[in-house]
Amino acid sequence: MTDLSRLSLNTATAKLQTLAECVEAAAEAGLGAVGPWRDRVQEVGAAEAGRIIRDAGLRTSSLCRGGFLTAVGEQATAEALADNRRALEEAAAIGAGELVMVVGGLPEGDRDIVAARQRVADGIAALVPHAQDAGVRLALEPMNPIFAADRGVLSTLEQSLEMAAPFPAEAVGVVVDTYHVWWDPKLQEMIARAGAEGRISSYQVCDWELPLKEDTLNSRGYMGDGHCDFTSTTQWVRDAGYTGDIEVEIFNVGIWEQGAPTIVATMAQRYADLVLPHL
Amino acid sequence: MTDLSRLSLNTATAKLQTLAECVEAAAEAGLGAVGPWRDRVQEVGAAEAGRIIRDAGLRTSSLCRGGFLTAVGEQATAEALADNRRALEEAAAIGAGELVMVVGGLPEGDRDIVAARQRVADGIAALVPHAQDAGVRLALEPMNPIFAADRGVLSTLEQSLEMAAPFPAEAVGVVVDTYHVWWDPKLQEMIARAGAEGRISSYQVCDWELPLKEDTLNSRGYMGDGHCDFTSTTQWVRDAGYTGDIEVEIFNVGIWEQGAPTIVATMAQRYADLVLPHL
Repeated sequence: MTDLSRLSLNTATAKLQTLAECVEAAAEAGLGAVGPWRDRVQEVGAAEAGRIIRDAGLRTSSLCRGGFLTAVGEQATAEALADNRRALEEAAAIGAGELVMVVGGLPEGDRDIVAARQRVADGIAALVPHAQDAGVRLALEPMNPIFAADRGVLSTLEQSLEMAAPFPAEAVGVVVDTYHVWWDPKLQEMIARAGAEGRISSYQVCDWELPLKEDTLNSRGYMGDGHCDFTSTTQWVRDAGYTGDIEVEIFNVGIWEQGAPTIVATMAQRYADLVLPHL
Repeated sequence: MTDLSRLSLNTATAKLQTLAECVEAAAEAGLGAVGPWRDRVQEVGAAEAGRIIRDAGLRTSSLCRGGFLTAVGEQATAEALADNRRALEEAAAIGAGELVMVVGGLPEGDRDIVAARQRVADGIAALVPHAQDAGVRLALEPMNPIFAADRGVLSTLEQSLEMAAPFPAEAVGVVVDTYHVWWDPKLQEMIARAGAEGRISSYQVCDWELPLKEDTLNSRGYMGDGHCDFTSTTQWVRDAGYTGDIEVEIFNVGIWEQGAPTIVATMAQRYADLVLPHL
């Protein structure tokens, strides 16, 4: 029987289901973990969410998401930091050791991406002590440059590692998400560096499928349906010493409509075919 | 009067017009150059195309495009190299010192982007002697990663400079196109490096506008309509010692329908407002 113990269902992949439904589908299929989003945690409360996951015998691979640290001004900054502190508390409550950070895009009308990135760095510095108190790592997620303007000004693993460098590896890590980094000319080198530094917080898999859908945010595909090289990337992540969970996080309206059991069955098959052999 | 002597109309910006119409619109507006695509050159022949441009008193800032070097197999490779040699001859005939190289994406069903990039490097090596004979530079264009799978596996200036490094700066340069590189965390550093190496072949400007259109290839905007920082980028290009033409290359169906005179007037105004003050 295929070993799915390192496979994790990110709840955004089955976005129309509750946390309990996601957990049930994951547990029945033999997955080892789930990676919930905050909306699914908050609708039952963090304590109850943690209980649901633990009672099913699953781990929590990560909590999505903190971040959005690019706003300008004292009040907006304070609100963003406060929300991230709450996210750290929720992560701790559900047993997630990693808080995935989608750092935010450019504020309306603002074109100074260098300054926006500095605000992210400042925000991370402010959050590190809280992360350490909570025992939760801030997992910086470089995003595909298609999202640089409106979602995440962190664009490469190298940049994320540079931003993490001033802080202990236990406090700030990086996410390797194939959808976001598959094109990076320095991917192998930077995965190796992230591993050597002990900073790989999460390995997330889904595919870059063309043509992009009109709603480019929700244009991701199952592994194998697009252009990502899961063989090489998985080997690089393995060779970097990563032994954690592999999360499947797919934003795709058509996939959501399939429902959690079908989604989990499909992603498990693709994982077994394309990822697991190279772990 | 605004000095438009360094401004160049790339014919893809007025894609519905002939070369002669583009040249007329550019000359009447006081631009210093045009950057034709090969289709517009070939429909009149390279010798005639060169005459049209020279007779209007314009320079040829570049020829678009060579490249597409990622095909697999002896025959496909030989055909690609032969086509690039023809492009070099056309460039020389129209007085273009730079041949913009869109290097090609992944072949159908092929996910090995590392190998595809190596084929590009091999192709460039094979073309360098021909470029030197023609007195035309191969201008490597890193493309926004949104196009990595289907159009260009060169994704960053750093990667392009590494690929250019084995060859003389007179033979292989790089293109700085804001649409493609605006998000790059190492943009300032790599523009400076490209300048220090004497490898800036072209500075192209157009904007990253959201939401992307359904046809993502033709989703670019006039400078000022999107998220690119023309102030910083232009200053970095200036500080890198670039004194060549600034090409406007916009793929956008709605803009094409405006016709060359309106397009040239609009791009000239945006250039005057957003780019020229920082040159």
